[in-house]
Parts: sequence; structure tokens; C-alpha cells
Amino acid sequence: MKKINGNFYQKSIVSIDQFDAHDIEKVFDVADSYKKGLEKGTVFHDLEGKLLTALFYEPSSRTFGSFTAATQRLGGGIIPIQGVQFSSVVKGETLEDTIRVFASYSDAIALRHPEEGASKHAAEVSPVPIINAGDGVGEHPTQALLDLYTIKERLGRTEHLSIAMVGDLKYGRTVHSLSKLLSLYKNIVMYFVCPKTSQMPQDIVNLIKKRGVKIEIVSSIQPIIDKMDVLYMTRVQKERMDKKLYESIKDLFILNGRMAGRMKKKSIIMHPLPRIHEMTTDVDSNPRAVYFTHEVKNGMYVRMALLKLVLAK
Amino acid sequence: MKKINGNFYQKSIVSIDQFDAHDIEKVFDVADSYKKGLEKGTVFHDLEGKLLTALFYEPSSRTFGSFTAATQRLGGGIIPIQGVQFSSVVKGETLEDTIRVFASYSDAIALRHPEEGASKHAAEVSPVPIINAGDGVGEHPTQALLDLYTIKERLGRTEHLSIAMVGDLKYGRTVHSLSKLLSLYKNIVMYFVCPKTSQMPQDIVNLIKKRGVKIEIVSSIQPIIDKMDVLYMTRVQKERMDKKLYESIKDLFILNGRMAGRMKKKSIIMHPLPRIHEMTTDVDSNPRAVYFTHEVKNGMYVRMALLKLVLAK
Amino acid sequence: MKKINGNFYQKSIVSIDQFDAHDIEKVFDVADSYKKGLEKGTVFHDLEGKLLTALFYEPSSRTFGSFTAATQRLGGGIIPIQGVQFSSVVKGETLEDTIRVFASYSDAIALRHPEEGASKHAAEVSPVPIINAGDGVGEHPTQALLDLYTIKERLGRTEHLSIAMVGDLKYGRTVHSLSKLLSLYKNIVMYFVCPKTSQMPQDIVNLIKKRGVKIEIVSSIQPIIDKMDVLYMTRVQKERMDKKLYESIKDLFILNGRMAGRMKKKSIIMHPLPRIHEMTTDVDSNPRAVYFTHEVKNGMYVRMALLKLVLAK
Repeated sequence: MKKINGNFYQKSIVSIDQFDAHDIEKVFDVADSYKKGLEKGTVFHDLEGKLLTALFYEPSSRTFGSFTAATQRLGGGIIPIQGVQFSSVVKGETLEDTIRVFASYSDAIALRHPEEGASKHAAEVSPVPIINAGDGVGEHPTQALLDLYTIKERLGRTEHLSIAMVGDLKYGRTVHSLSKLLSLYKNIVMYFVCPKTSQMPQDIVNLIKKRGVKIEIVSSIQPIIDKMDVLYMTRVQKERMDKKLYESIKDLFILNGRMAGRMKKKSIIMHPLPRIHEMTTDVDSNPRAVYFTHEVKNGMYVRMALLKLVLAK
Repeated sequence: MKKINGNFYQKSIVSIDQFDAHDIEKVFDVADSYKKGLEKGTVFHDLEGKLLTALFYEPSSRTFGSFTAATQRLGGGIIPIQGVQFSSVVKGETLEDTIRVFASYSDAIALRHPEEGASKHAAEVSPVPIINAGDGVGEHPTQALLDLYTIKERLGRTEHLSIAMVGDLKYGRTVHSLSKLLSLYKNIVMYFVCPKTSQMPQDIVNLIKKRGVKIEIVSSIQPIIDKMDVLYMTRVQKERMDKKLYESIKDLFILNGRMAGRMKKKSIIMHPLPRIHEMTTDVDSNPRAVYFTHEVKNGMYVRMALLKLVLAK
Repeated sequence: MKKINGNFYQKSIVSIDQFDAHDIEKVFDVADSYKKGLEKGTVFHDLEGKLLTALFYEPSSRTFGSFTAATQRLGGGIIPIQGVQFSSVVKGETLEDTIRVFASYSDAIALRHPEEGASKHAAEVSPVPIINAGDGVGEHPTQALLDLYTIKERLGRTEHLSIAMVGDLKYGRTVHSLSKLLSLYKNIVMYFVCPKTSQMPQDIVNLIKKRGVKIEIVSSIQPIIDKMDVLYMTRVQKERMDKKLYESIKDLFILNGRMAGRMKKKSIIMHPLPRIHEMTTDVDSNPRAVYFTHEVKNGMYVRMALLKLVLAK
């Protein structure tokens, strides 16, 4: 995994570990300019003649849609490969071979895969850049970038933040990537609000502690909610755990409108979506709720920025 | 549901009830110009930089293809989301939440959904226009518009028409939308040719009667076929009824080539397709048959017109 | 099936039998120019305003991706219809009717279908050109063209070739099309290396013999491998044979890196992909292996050339 070190051109985006604060600033600057342009109705041609393969081994209409939109908003084309399980893979082809094929057709591959490490593995054999669009319980770097972009946009800073991460922190790749990303900044306090069986992996805890993040483990949102700058809700990943475990934890970490009202005036409620019942719909109208109003669109802007930086000179 | 009242810009197209005769004329004028342009090989850029999400909860390669073609024929891009059942929706996300997400990526959403009222519901929460691409047994407004466009093109008028609607009128959303649309015009006589168990819903009958449509209920095509200007065949919606009912009615309302030959010289045979065995293939070569020769292409022209009017200033 | 006879415009590409050596030269010339252009970063607009329906009744992410890439690399748009089994076809629509519909939306249809002869049948009813993207055990003409293009590119000639075709020659449509294509050239010696139960169909053998191809039937790669110019490996088409037969033959015709090392210096190893276990991965690094390095990209160039010749004046 190559560090970005200020130069994105032709590099795979596999993990948030490749980025330093300067790289992130660069992504955000480009994202800003696209955001402003699109709001004014500018038609971009930065990726004209370029093709992205959206290679999704696992269904994800949301992330698929975001990459598809980002590419086309820049004038590029899409090779949409979803439900790969029904095709060559059924015939027994390896990931390596599939990657080599689509690398021949397209200028980059956005890869969604159920197995941790799949993107890293793909990047090793691919002659074109791989963009990790989520690999198992591993990473989801573009989600982390859009999360941080949203924090910066709404709160005006990426430092001096108290953030609570709520839900299934063991299997939630979103919080894994975001934790590592935030650890690049000063004075971050993270509150991990999760059941004992779903705690943040120890290697991530060790890494971010070493970088100076202060960590508090708490078992409920209630006692801390009024002190948070960011409340980051995640769903319990039902499909990644056995049924009994799911039933035992699913109702423990729910946010409702009344609780949301107790938050600081200048704070935000985030969610990577889809939201199931870990957050009631009366939260949506709270002005602190940014998941529908900012995060989704920001995902498109950030992915536009990454695709531009990786593919265009 | 907002009335169009001469202004389509940024409005959802949910029901044929939103249209008056002037609105329809406007759609048809734009459709005419696209038809002529495409026949000459003109390349249009009216939707350059725009994206349509084709959000299909229910498979429909035909309608999906038509919207996809219409958008691209105007230079726009597509976010193709089919088989939504395999993705976020499996994870339990509501229609409202899904709509909010894709509204962030795209400039409009063409929605196909198995439940009546889904489009109206979606339009209420969506910040971008929803185009109803068929919702359960409810409406299919773009189909009705293409049907009327075809009638006007082939017969030269939208008034003074005798039209027989044949098949499953209870569950056929196509005939629901078309009946309401035709009721905007003078001197329309409708012959409902259907089994007793599959009659046109009473609220639609009441509405169009009030508007002056003359209705005749008949139990077979034979006695009326030689008097019709339009014979509108529909398939029996097997997937919307139980097996026993289907078997009992499927063979009752079949058109064949010999019968088609008895029609008036200046008359047309229509079908929303797919055609199964309610119409034998020897009808296809009858010059009155317009389903393959005109209706399908007209569907693309009409959808191009709607997308242009809704999305471009 | 119309012969090309130097004029591709608006013709269906159903079988390799439509081509003579001049037609092939024309395709290769156009493919060459696209190859050079893309390598320099040229953005092509030859198919601007054109649409291709990729109508895949059978999953094939690879061929689907190649046609999708080829069309978009030329500025055209795609109507992606995969898994047709889940849609209109479930409702009972015939292939003829489906073809008529998509012919109304698009300027050409790339058709993948599980039944031999489907493309020919489709071409008979379609008002727009059909491009056969593989029909059952029948033909796969674009694959044969890319294979020959690769042979010419790597060996500098299409005549005076010793080629071994290995694997399931009975059900492998790829080798059927390629055999017929090579039979247009002089001094071709073909070695059929296959189990007795999976031999090349007799009608093809008869045809190519008549055209002067010399045929040798051998039961193993070993004794001939050092004399071949081209070693054309194919997978055993598991999904086209019963389980017992598959188990009995699957391990008989395997190529490994050591064997590959015995080949002539100027020779090539080809495979239509996906490669399962009939070829070990240590073959990939052999400089003679061209399946990933040349064939896949060449498939895109050749399809670009065909689409251009068929659709643009």
C-alpha cells in the first residue's frame, strides 16, 4: 500500500492509512470546488474518455450509486458489474483474474468485496488503480473521507473534537476507517458506545492511542450525549453476526428525537446509512442531523475528487 | 400531487391526474421535435450533465430500457438500480430513506415499485422530481401518454374515439391511466371487454363518466370489433392474481389475425407489451398493429419530452 | 445471414461465416487505429448519440464488460439488460418480441443467449443490427476475431500456423468460431487435443478440411507442445455437461509453467477466459502467455471496430 505523499496519480486507494493530513486537505479542496460547481450547474468534463468499473461482489446500491454518479458527473463512463456471484465467479474464476480482465477495459476499478483485504490484494495485481468501496469488516476509506469532510463542513474544524461512535464497532468497517482518519488530528476524544461483544478491534485502539487519541468506553449514549460534538450512529450489522447475538444487542443503542434534542447546539448527528431502527425517524428533522442533508451528497463530491486526483493529470 | 398547469419544471410526474389537455399538448410537441430530430440523426445535449436514477424495485427491462434510452438520447447519464430487493432494502431501509439517498446523487428518479401509491409517497419526501414508472396496480402515466401520443399520431385526433380495452382491467394499471387520460377529451366511447372478476375499478369508472365518457361493458371482442377506432389489448396480469383465477380467464379475450382483419380500415391495435398469448403473432403483420412499430419508440420520445420539461429550464 | 463483402454498415454480425479475409483485414485496420489512439489518450466520439443494448440472457460479466467498454470508449451509450430471466421473459415474452422492443430504443443489440442459433433468429426479425455475443454452443464471432487479431499482433501473420486447441472442443463455441475463421488462411495445421467425448463437431471438421486445413487429433498436449505456434487452451464447460463426465475429463488437459517453458520461443499461449484449473497460475508469467496481457484488451479494440463499421457511416 503506497502512501499518497501528495501525489494521487495512478495510485490505488485501499486504506485510510495511506493518507496524511495534507493529502486529505487536497481531496477536500477538490471536493469543495466540485460542490460549488455542481451547485451552480457547471458541467464537468474532467474524466471525459475515462471508464470506471464498478465491480461489486456484494450488493450495495448506495455506494454503487455514489461512484456511478461521481464518475458521470465528471463526464466519465461506467462499467456496472453487480452481483458478480452470478457470473464468471460462479465459473470459479479468482479475484486476481477478474481484476486483470476489468483492468484491461477500464481506467480504474471501484471494488466492493465481502472479504477483508480484498482491495489490497486486488491492488497488488491490478495495472490500474483500485478504489476500495468496502471490503468485508476491513476498511471503507471513501466513507471515512466523506464523514470527515462533513465534520469539517458543519463544525468548521477537524481538531478538538469529542465524537461518540455508537453501535457495532467490531464489525463496522466505517468506524474503523473513520477512527484511523481522525487520529491524524489533534485533541480528539473518542467515546466508544457499544456492547461488550462488539468492541473496536484492539489493533485500531492501539494505533489511535499511540497517535494521541483519548478513548472512553461507555455502555450507553445517555450520560455523554450532551457533551459530544459528533454523534456517529451505526447500524448493527445483522448480516455479519449470528441471529442470537443480534437480537441481544439490537435495541441497546437507539437514538430518538428527544435524546437528540439534548445535544449541544453546535453538534452533528451522523450515520453511514442505511439506518434501520437504531435511530427513530423523528431525529431526521433535528437540525443537527446531517446524514441525509450532507453526508450522502458529500460522498459524491469526495469520490469525484478522488477519481479526479487518481485518474486525471 | 401538484397540477402541471403549463409548468413542468422540477415537478414530479406521479399521476395522469396532474395533466390537462394543454399540458399534454406541450409534451406531445416536444416529443414530436425529438422524434423528427432522431430520425434525421440529430445528437441532442439537452440533459448534458444531468443524471437520472432508474430505481426499479420490480423488474421491468422494457420500461427500464425506455427511460435509460430516453435519458441518454438527450445526453444525460443513468444510475441503474435494479433488483433493489437484493441490496439496502434487504437490510431493512424504508422507501423514504432510499429516495432521499438517490435524490442526493441525481437530478430525478424514475421509480418502479410493486405497491400502489409508492410514487406519490416518494414524491412527498424527495427533493428532486419523481417520475412514476409504474406503481403496483396504481398508475403508469408515461405509458398512458405514449398510448395517447400513438393514437393521435395514427388517427390524427384525440377526440371522437371508440376504444375497446380488453383483458384484465382490474389490475392493469395501464388501462387505469389511459382511461383517465382519454376522459379529458370529447366524445370518447369506451368498451370494457373483461371477465366479471377483472372489471375496471369503480372510482375510475365514476370519474370518467362524470367527465362525459360513455361506457359500454361487453364480454367479448367479437360483436364490437368492427366498430372500434382503437382496440387496446392487455395481457392478463398473471403475477397479480391467484393461479386458479388466471387459468379461468386467460383464454377468453384473445385476438387473432382473422378477427383483426374485420376492423375498420382506419383503426389501430395497441398493446402495452409484453404480449403473451392474448394476441396471436399473425396480428403483427396487420397494418393496424402499432405496438411494435410505433408504441415502443413513442414511449422513448414521450419520456424524452417529459425529462426535458421537468429537468431543463 | 448476409455476407459482409466489404460493407459492414447496418449488418448483423451473427457468424464468422459472414467474413472473408478482406473483411477481417478491415476490422483489424480499424481496431489498430483505436488501439493506437487509446494508448495515446485520444477521446473518440465516433458513436456519439448512438446506443447499444447489451441484452444478456445469460450472465457473462466479461463479455458484457467488453461491449460496454467498447461502446463508451467511442462515445456511445449503453442500455444494460442482464439477467433478462428475471423480467419480461419471466412473463413469457418471446425472444422475437424482446428484440423488437430493444431495437426501438437502440441502434444495435449485443445478444448473449444460451441457445444455439438465437442470434441468427434475432437478426431475422430485428430492424437494427444484432451482434452475436455468444449463443449457446453455437458461435462467438467477436471472440474469434479478437483471437485472430492477437495471433496476428504477436506472431506477425495469420498464415503458416500450427495451432493446438485444447479442452472441450464439442461444447466450446470459441474454438468453433476460431477454427472456421482460421480456415480462411493458408497452411494452417490444427491439433485437436480433447477427450473422445468432447470432439470438434463433424460439420466444422468437414468445412475446414475442405478449405485446406490439416487436422491432427491428439490425446495429450505433451508430444506436440514444442512444435506449436499457438497453444489455445479452453476450459471444460462444466455448466454444459453432466457432472460425471466433467469429473472424468477435467484433469486431463492441464497446462503448467514447466510445460509452457518447452514451447518455441516465438509462440503464444491463449485462453478465452475465465481460466479455472486447466492452466496453473505459474503460466501467467511466461512471456508467451497473452490472455491477460493482450487478448482482453484486443477484445475491446475489435468490438470497437465492429461497432464503428456497423453503426457509423
